[in-house]
Amino acid sequence: MNGLHLIGDWYGCRCGQEWLKEEGRLRDLCVRACKEAGLTVLGDYFFQFLYDDGTPAGVTGAVVLAESHLAIHTWPEDGNVTLDVYVCNYSRDNSARAEAVYESLLHHFNPMKTQCERVQRGDLTPAVVAERVA
Amino acid sequence: MNGLHLIGDWYGCRCGQEWLKEEGRLRDLCVRACKEAGLTVLGDYFFQFLYDDGTPAGVTGAVVLAESHLAIHTWPEDGNVTLDVYVCNYSRDNSARAEAVYESLLHHFNPMKTQCERVQRGDLTPAVVAERVA
Repeated sequence: MNGLHLIGDWYGCRCGQEWLKEEGRLRDLCVRACKEAGLTVLGDYFFQFLYDDGTPAGVTGAVVLAESHLAIHTWPEDGNVTLDVYVCNYSRDNSARAEAVYESLLHHFNPMKTQCERVQRGDLTPAVVAERVA
Repeated sequence: MNGLHLIGDWYGCRCGQEWLKEEGRLRDLCVRACKEAGLTVLGDYFFQFLYDDGTPAGVTGAVVLAESHLAIHTWPEDGNVTLDVYVCNYSRDNSARAEAVYESLLHHFNPMKTQCERVQRGDLTPAVVAERVA
């Protein structure tokens, strides 16, 4: 379970609105980014939100990977996107592959402002591990 | 996109191995935990890993929510689990619902050691936001 989790909050994306509003388009983009980075896509679930008049609103979805997952949510009203890419290093170090997916999608969405947390998971540092009594 | 993301790494889970090894059982548990906490399940994708002899190994999956997502991965060899619960507060504050899902599954898996990061997302604190030039 050791691995890198990239947590991105992107504001004011300057890509076309279709990438934030069309479920099929966003799904294909995310799946392709994972495959191009050398990650193994097992399956996905994406959902299309609609406005009251039936026109496309935001999209939310997840790509399940052999190496863990990608999750993405869009808010087209403000051009905002949240992206998670978590890869574990079970059989090899996948950190560079996670960074490649993140950078590829960041480049595509082209936000005006970004916030990114890098969480190193599965690292049993004594200071941050809590013992639990059954 | 403002909201709470709980990132749990759990070690040495003392629940039965079936919860870490059986895709259908884990999926039902996660979906039920989300619904019981008052979150809106849109869909999911779960995958069953198998050992070379065809017996069940770990499980990986994601539940896509109207409020964002839950993602879970299991390593039955060591009894380890990673759990993500991210909820945004688009129409109401869902933080307590995220905590309820996390606590419900933590209680169920009953790990010997835990590590948890709480990330407040979508908070445009100037110090942590990077401006990007197109």
